This record gives sequence, C-alpha cells and structure tokens, in this order.
Amino acid sequence: MKATVYYGARDVRLETVPDPTIKEPGDAIVRVVRAAICGSDLWFYRGITQWEPGDRTGHEFIGIVDAVGSDVRTVKPGDYVIAPFVSSDGTCEYCHAALQTSCVRMTNWGDDANGGQAEAVRVPHADGTLVKMPGMERDPAKLASALAICDVMGTGHHGVVTAGAKAGGTVVVIGDGAVGLCGVLSAARVIGAERVIAVGHNPKRLELARGFGATDTIDSHDPNTAQTLLELTRGGASSVVEAVGNQESMELALEVARPGGIVSFVGVPHNVTNLPLRPLFAKNVALRGALAPTRAYIETLMRHVMDGTIDPSPVFDLALPLDRVAEGYAAMDERRAIKVILDTGVR
Amino acid sequence: MKATVYYGARDVRLETVPDPTIKEPGDAIVRVVRAAICGSDLWFYRGITQWEPGDRTGHEFIGIVDAVGSDVRTVKPGDYVIAPFVSSDGTCEYCHAALQTSCVRMTNWGDDANGGQAEAVRVPHADGTLVKMPGMERDPAKLASALAICDVMGTGHHGVVTAGAKAGGTVVVIGDGAVGLCGVLSAARVIGAERVIAVGHNPKRLELARGFGATDTIDSHDPNTAQTLLELTRGGASSVVEAVGNQESMELALEVARPGGIVSFVGVPHNVTNLPLRPLFAKNVALRGALAPTRAYIETLMRHVMDGTIDPSPVFDLALPLDRVAEGYAAMDERRAIKVILDTGVR
Repeated sequence: MKATVYYGARDVRLETVPDPTIKEPGDAIVRVVRAAICGSDLWFYRGITQWEPGDRTGHEFIGIVDAVGSDVRTVKPGDYVIAPFVSSDGTCEYCHAALQTSCVRMTNWGDDANGGQAEAVRVPHADGTLVKMPGMERDPAKLASALAICDVMGTGHHGVVTAGAKAGGTVVVIGDGAVGLCGVLSAARVIGAERVIAVGHNPKRLELARGFGATDTIDSHDPNTAQTLLELTRGGASSVVEAVGNQESMELALEVARPGGIVSFVGVPHNVTNLPLRPLFAKNVALRGALAPTRAYIETLMRHVMDGTIDPSPVFDLALPLDRVAEGYAAMDERRAIKVILDTGVR
Repeated sequence: MKATVYYGARDVRLETVPDPTIKEPGDAIVRVVRAAICGSDLWFYRGITQWEPGDRTGHEFIGIVDAVGSDVRTVKPGDYVIAPFVSSDGTCEYCHAALQTSCVRMTNWGDDANGGQAEAVRVPHADGTLVKMPGMERDPAKLASALAICDVMGTGHHGVVTAGAKAGGTVVVIGDGAVGLCGVLSAARVIGAERVIAVGHNPKRLELARGFGATDTIDSHDPNTAQTLLELTRGGASSVVEAVGNQESMELALEVARPGGIVSFVGVPHNVTNLPLRPLFAKNVALRGALAPTRAYIETLMRHVMDGTIDPSPVFDLALPLDRVAEGYAAMDERRAIKVILDTGVR
C-alpha cells in the first residue's frame, strides 16, 4: 500500500510499504478513505521536534474496516468508522472518566510504522478506539466533518467544555487556526454561548469564524487587543480558549480571563518561558491543560453533524489526492491553507 | 491607641497613633481583641516586598464593634465580630459569586493607615465584611480559631475546595506552614477526604498535621518525594493543594497531580520562573490560583469550630501581648513559631 514517510525537515514522501496486518486480537485493519494534515504535524515537518527518517506520519483519518482480530466485538468489515487521534482501550479508569488521552494503554498513530496518512492503518484496541458512523459516506461534506472530529473539532470542543463555557455565556477563543475556528463553532452552536469572541490576525479565517457563529472578531495584532476584550466583556470572559500556544497568546488569555474564570489551552505550548502566575492567583483563575480526549466526543459531535447543527468541514480549504500529500504539507507550512484533506481513493 | 508600624526590614514597632474614626457611612470601628502575624507579613518584614516607613501592619483580627456609620445594618456596638483579610462590599457581582477578594470596592487592611495589629481598626463596608459571632468570647481556644478563620483556615479550606476535594477522595497538601496545616484540617474534617497526605520538612509541624487528620506525612527533603507520592496515590492525586509557592513545590504539585486533577495554589508564588506546562497539557490538569475569599467561608467554618468539628487554634504556637509584637515577627522570621497570636488586652 501507499503511506506517507518522513525523511527530514520539509521532506515527506508517499511510498509503497507493506500492508498492515492484525498483530493483536484487539486490532482492526482500517482502509483509509480520508486523512488530514494537522497543524501539529508542522512541528516535525519544520524540524522543530526531532523525528527519525522512515517514521510514518498522520494521526487523523476515517475509513472502512477491512479486517478485525478475534477479540473485536463492536466493529466488523465494511463498517465506516471514525478514529480519534490516539488509540485507547476503552476499559481503564481514565477511559471511563472520558480522559482517553491518559489511557494506560494509549498508543499514538505513527508508532510501530502505523501512520494515518496512508491507504490503511492497523488500529490497536479497536473496540475502545473506533466509532461506527453509518451513513456519513453518502455526503462528502459529512466525510470531511467526520475527519475534523478526529482531532480539530473534538479539540476545539474540549477547549470550550473544559473552559466551563455555558449556554448564554461569553467565550473568548484566541487563535484562528483550525482548532480555534472549531472552538468558535462549538461555543456558538454546540454549547449555545451568547457571545463568542474570536481573536486572530487572518481576515479570511476571521470571516470563517463569523460563519461559525463568532459574534465579534478581534485583530490580535492590534496593540489594544487586551483592552478591547476587557471592554467588550466588561472585565473579562469566564471562559477563554487559548489555541495558539505561545508566550503572547498565553499572557493575553490570562489577562482577559474574568475573576473566577478558566483559561483552557488546547495545544502543546512552545517557547512559553515565563508564565505570569499573579493574575491566576489574584483573580482565582484556573489554567487548564486540555489535550483533547476526542474519543469522548465523537458520538455527540457526529450526531450534531448528521442533523446539521454543526458543519466543521470548511476548515478544510484545500483538498488533494493522497499522492500529493507533500504539496499539502507545503501549503500548510506556507500558510496558504488552514487545513488539508487528503482523498486516498479508497471506497 | 497603640498600633504596629513598619519602619524598615526587620524593624516594626508598636506606637501610639490617633484613634480611628468613622469616615464613611458604611464604616465600623472595631476594637481588636486578638490579632495575628501572617506568613505573608514576612515578605515586607524581610524587605523582599517594598513598604514605606510608617505603613501600618496586620490583616488578621477579631474584635468588638465600638461604633458604626449611619448606613451599617448588620452589626452594632458590642458585637463580637470576625474580619476576613480584606474588606468587601457584599453587593457586587464578585461578592455574590463568593469571590470577595475580587470585590470591585475591595480594600486591604493597612491601606489608609488602618492595620489590624493594633488596638482598633476602621472597617470599610462593615455590612459586607464583618461577621457576628456571639459566644466565641467565652473560650480562648475559640477566639484563636476565629482568628485563624480570618486568613489561614479560610485559605487552607479554599485551596482544598478549589482543588475539587471530595468526601472519600485523596488530597495532597504540599507545605507544612499554617495554611498547609489548615488545608489538612479542612480536607480531613470539613470535606471528609479519606486520604490526606501532608508534605513538609518540619517534624513538629508534620506531627501537628497528623493531629489535624493527615493519614500520611512525607518529608519534602527526600529526593524520592514525587515517586513516593505517585506510589501512595497509584498515579497521582486528583486534588493537590500547593501551599509553599516556590519553583520546587509547584513542580512537585504538577508532577503528582492525577490526570484530570486540579492543583490549587494558595499563596503568592515567588521566584517561580519556568513553570512546566507540558504536564498540565498532557494530563488535563488545571492549575488554579486561589487567593482565598475567606469572607465566603466564615459562617461555615465558625459553625464547625463552635460544634467542635474543627479546632485550628494549635497553628498558633506562640501567644504574646500586643506590646511584644516585634518579638512575634522575629520568632516567625527565625522559624521558631508557626504563627503568632497577639492579645491586645481589649475586652
């Protein structure tokens, strides 16, 4: 089969590799229908996190079950399935607490030569990991929405939920990347916040934020951003989602949090060297790390997709066939695309 | 009257100053029966935070109402009252949300020549600030407990509450100062946690922690402290109270937090220059700043004191008359006392 392989900074290639096979009784083999490139993939693509040449890439995919191990009970060959961005066993304390990213048997895609930007994937703990979604294959936009739910939509939603957002409340989302945009969509359409303020610097993305339900959009490059936000919210927002992950965005998030509020950060922070703790202390604000257990939200979010409540598919603004995966990475690296969807041709 | 005045590092003096008078219709004048020296007073005492010579000291006191302004409705001359460590109006959004430390009209004792280590204090917003406590004057231990509730007991309790501690759960309290000890007492006796692990390095204080209900005490100087805690809790505690406020204690708190848990820090952090954010992110842990709105807890905690459920008075291990206040500061500075109670002689 074909799979995407990392060779070095700005060098990923689609190559022919051995087909995956069942190794454990809990495994399933999934033929990938659509895969995505993630903003977090750019960390290794740019050489900032160190990967080994030969590593397989991709952790966002949906597909069709091709084969299952002898212990698998919940999916069977032919089922359309959604995978979250890590696998989890579904049985441990943390899975039961909807914290599948802390599953004691959690595995990352890419480990064990098993990336998602490929024609097929071996899925460990298939019963705990995969969610059947019959019917999504009839509409390409629903396939794209399902793919968003693997990671960015589930992550944006987790940020909003863990920031304590409430129907009728106010949510500030800092960052206009795919996760930030999905946070806006979750706050406005899933949670029903009354005021959703998107902070970013790309006019096209902020326009998409408005389409997703943002009531206000603020330019993050304006030196008065914090003051503007404090005025709009009359003293800060109870729920702030930080979806950038650098020093400036974290400081802004803490500055515009209302006393008693929550700042949830949904990405790995990079180069945050001196987080100011006094605003947290003086304002009784909680800073919550939020690596999203997207597995926990797949059923709910897909129900909203299928009934038309949400449509996160516009975060994919570039569609390419799998054999042009390298172009997709370059487009995201150069910020020409928010997020790339790859069509493997598998049906 | 006599009041404590700051002159410089390690130089506080009891001096004769003008009696306080009613300035606003919401004011009350309280004759101080007992006052305390706080661990946080050591920051200016040691010259680490900059104060002006002539500033008045002390923010923990209980006393008897002597006079009230024309707007005051809830207290009257002769009432025994407890004051939290800041004043608050009792009417704003944040007071209604039990976040009185964020009150829009909040004032600090010491501002406007109005410190609590004195024979009398002018109390702004008396209706919002003071809590009547009839009967406490009949027992010196209850007077001491009431004084603890002004700050350290309310602060320890707030840390435990905001760390999400639950009856039957596990709480780790890092720090064996007065606040940490009160956190242990709150977790064990007020919340009813099943396992309360106190971390400190002073054998006498850890013994007091056991008396307050700690099920385990851990030496913080042991290089294996984190490992020991992770083993005792089988992977971390859902509720961690950080009551030291330096780099090592914050790192330890984050390391021993269970996935999905909360670390609440109850003191102003000093010299925390590089907080590791990855454990917060990967474990979905919340770091919650917790400047305690002790006003919110006075009634509940005093009910527990009056019915004998809790007795925080042993945190005061040195009692002095007010005219020996300078000795009290020195004893705390030199770690000869956990906490000093000052008797003004007012009855």
